[in-house]
Amino acid sequence: MITTDILIIGAGPTGLFTVFEAGLLKLKCHLIDALPQPGGQCSELYPKKPIYDIPGVPDILAGDLTKNLLEQGKQFEPGFTLGERAETIEKQEDGSFIVTTNKGTKHHAPIVAIAGGLGSFEPRKPLIDNIAYYEDLGVDYFIKDPEVYRNKKVVISGGGDSALDWSIILADIAEEVTLIHRRNEFRGALDSVEKVQELKLLGKINLITPSEVTALHGNKRLEGVTIEHDGEKILYEADHFIPLFGLSPKLGPIGDWGLEIEKNAIKVDTFDYQTNIPGIFAIGDVNTYPGKLKLILCGFHEATLMCQSAYQILNPGKKYVLKYTTVSGINGFDGSRKEAPKAVVQAIQ
Amino acid sequence: MITTDILIIGAGPTGLFTVFEAGLLKLKCHLIDALPQPGGQCSELYPKKPIYDIPGVPDILAGDLTKNLLEQGKQFEPGFTLGERAETIEKQEDGSFIVTTNKGTKHHAPIVAIAGGLGSFEPRKPLIDNIAYYEDLGVDYFIKDPEVYRNKKVVISGGGDSALDWSIILADIAEEVTLIHRRNEFRGALDSVEKVQELKLLGKINLITPSEVTALHGNKRLEGVTIEHDGEKILYEADHFIPLFGLSPKLGPIGDWGLEIEKNAIKVDTFDYQTNIPGIFAIGDVNTYPGKLKLILCGFHEATLMCQSAYQILNPGKKYVLKYTTVSGINGFDGSRKEAPKAVVQAIQ
Ligand SMILES: Cc1cc2nc3c(=O)[nH]c(=O)nc-3n(C[C@H](O)[C@H](O)[C@H](O)COP(=O)(O)OP(=O)(O)OC[C@H]3O[C@@H](n4cnc5c(N)ncnc54)[C@H](O)[C@@H]3O)c2cc1C
Ligand SMILES: Cc1cc2nc3c(=O)[nH]c(=O)nc-3n(C[C@H](O)[C@H](O)[C@H](O)COP(=O)(O)OP(=O)(O)OC[C@H]3O[C@@H](n4cnc5c(N)ncnc54)[C@H](O)[C@@H]3O)c2cc1C
Repeated sequence: MITTDILIIGAGPTGLFTVFEAGLLKLKCHLIDALPQPGGQCSELYPKKPIYDIPGVPDILAGDLTKNLLEQGKQFEPGFTLGERAETIEKQEDGSFIVTTNKGTKHHAPIVAIAGGLGSFEPRKPLIDNIAYYEDLGVDYFIKDPEVYRNKKVVISGGGDSALDWSIILADIAEEVTLIHRRNEFRGALDSVEKVQELKLLGKINLITPSEVTALHGNKRLEGVTIEHDGEKILYEADHFIPLFGLSPKLGPIGDWGLEIEKNAIKVDTFDYQTNIPGIFAIGDVNTYPGKLKLILCGFHEATLMCQSAYQILNPGKKYVLKYTTVSGINGFDGSRKEAPKAVVQAIQ
Repeated sequence: MITTDILIIGAGPTGLFTVFEAGLLKLKCHLIDALPQPGGQCSELYPKKPIYDIPGVPDILAGDLTKNLLEQGKQFEPGFTLGERAETIEKQEDGSFIVTTNKGTKHHAPIVAIAGGLGSFEPRKPLIDNIAYYEDLGVDYFIKDPEVYRNKKVVISGGGDSALDWSIILADIAEEVTLIHRRNEFRGALDSVEKVQELKLLGKINLITPSEVTALHGNKRLEGVTIEHDGEKILYEADHFIPLFGLSPKLGPIGDWGLEIEKNAIKVDTFDYQTNIPGIFAIGDVNTYPGKLKLILCGFHEATLMCQSAYQILNPGKKYVLKYTTVSGINGFDGSRKEAPKAVVQAIQ
């Protein structure tokens, strides 16, 4: 059982910044995300695109924003359960909660912050009969750790940035990378398209278009795929088949937790972004209230106000006086200390 | 008469970010501030100190935050009335407002956003009989433009960072800089104290401590000051006397505008941070509502929601659909355009 002060569901920008604000109040956080990496929409949907409306940051790539948020919170040592979806929640007698993922990992915390964005990112899956059987046995919808593919035969399917970029990365790692797509045209960043073109000419990526994987083969695990190309069916040896057809967010199981839902989002008040269930908060894109805007900067504000209430729940009766980071500095849970250089009081001779 | 869409009172971080958010909605802003420079508390009280809780920015000097906010908004060409205090507001028949400063500058706008922080920064003044007479005639509480002091004789009084830093800057510009303080000890950044020490030894700053200015002299304008030092009174020639005893914010005239005030702040709702007077909004440190935190990041959120309502007021009946900066880019009023590199759709041969 993983235990923490605030269990955050969703490691998008809102969840990540919660770690920092909670840490200022000496509260520990643990995050669950269905994706294999933190960053939510920023890291999954547009890591290489610039955002212009982060306040005080005229221009930053969404992937770099994610990095900076991780950096900002790291001294508060957040825990992560990645690649798992929060599935069920059970309220305990003492008012705390146990949240269990689809892989059975259990988390226990007095406060739950749902920062689930538009929902848990779920892969779009190709329609192949026995594909469910091979999931985790060679069929992967996400790439968690590229090293898994070292010296393996990999077939990647898809026509967008993910398919292009992972083909480029795995070309250096895998024994063989085959990229297939049902059209001749790919849609992505110019430099990604050009790089795949170059690797294809160098023989480092095996490109077959237009084509489709129509069957999967293998005993205990994946051993090969059938690729249809030009009306012909070719049997290809493959240790991994990675369909990258995009991810679509689904509110999913959270929709059944007894929370008030409106327009596919969780209703909260604006005092502290608490839901109708005391102790469960909803912040960022996942919530709704009068005036709500689904913007990153709003999630930051909501997370900050939420942490104040979390502190009150965890420290009943204790008065918390807001401290400026500039004045009080930051004491990390890892023993680190950040602070402004002190003024000196000194005579001039 | 200066006219604009949104008249912002207060050019602190909240006011500055409003320029950007309003610009995204094609609304123009003009800012009034009592200080000679933008940045509010950040530029006036702690420009060289780090802030750690700007979301996505692990560490930034308050002065650099101000610079970045100006940079972020500059393509929306905000106007500035600096060094003047907004004094009166008059509602016009058509619902718009005219705001007049203490120097008589008039501003006309359909929307007023009060981003006044803890209030208008007002200088603490030394108790010298006829000091009011010499204000703007040689006595300055702020330094707007250092060039004013070129080849002049300047007496600076004060023991903190402002007195130290302006003595350093003016040492290169003025004919003569005399720094006086009623104690021997100065309180400031170590490098400022050391630099003044060095300039004193080089004869570029004339240091007299402990001492006080007790009288001002001159006909049409300041010509000299009396400095008391060691029980002696010395008459000093001086074109300028600059007492830098700190600034204290005062809600001031805004308190009499008929706005609902609570705990020295303006009451607003959290839908759009509008006050009890339709068309007047209050954002940032100056407002209060249940859960309010006086933090920079909260002002950013409040400014953003406010601009949506301002847009509705100015474009009645027009539906505004939130656009992501990443997806739609930014069209500056100066003709500039920022946008993410477009994806290409291209076959790989
Ligand atoms: C192309 C594009 C451009 C954008 N541009 C901008 C912009 O310029 N400015 C701006 O402010 N915003 C922009 N946005 C929106 C911005 O990305 C979102 O507002 C932001 O990501 C919301 O952050 P969040 O942390 O609330 O949620 P998300 O980023 O959506 O993260 C939520 C996370 O929760 C996880 N999750 C949900 N449910 C579960 C569960 N049951 N179990 C486990 N994990 C779960 C999801 O997998 C996801 O990773 C853009 C969005 C897109 C798609
Ligand atoms: C030492 C110190 C450290 C801090 N550290 C942090 C920190 O780490 N993190 C954080 O989030 N916050 C911090 N703060 C608080 C932060 O600076 C404020 O929350 C922020 O400046 C508020 O911004 P604002 O734009 O709302 O108001 P201000 O910055 O107060 O700006 C308001 C401006 O309005 C002007 N004004 C007011 N009335 C009038 C009028 N009638 N006419 C003309 N001008 C007027 C004032 O002159 C002023 O310039 C700190 C504050 C201090 C003093």
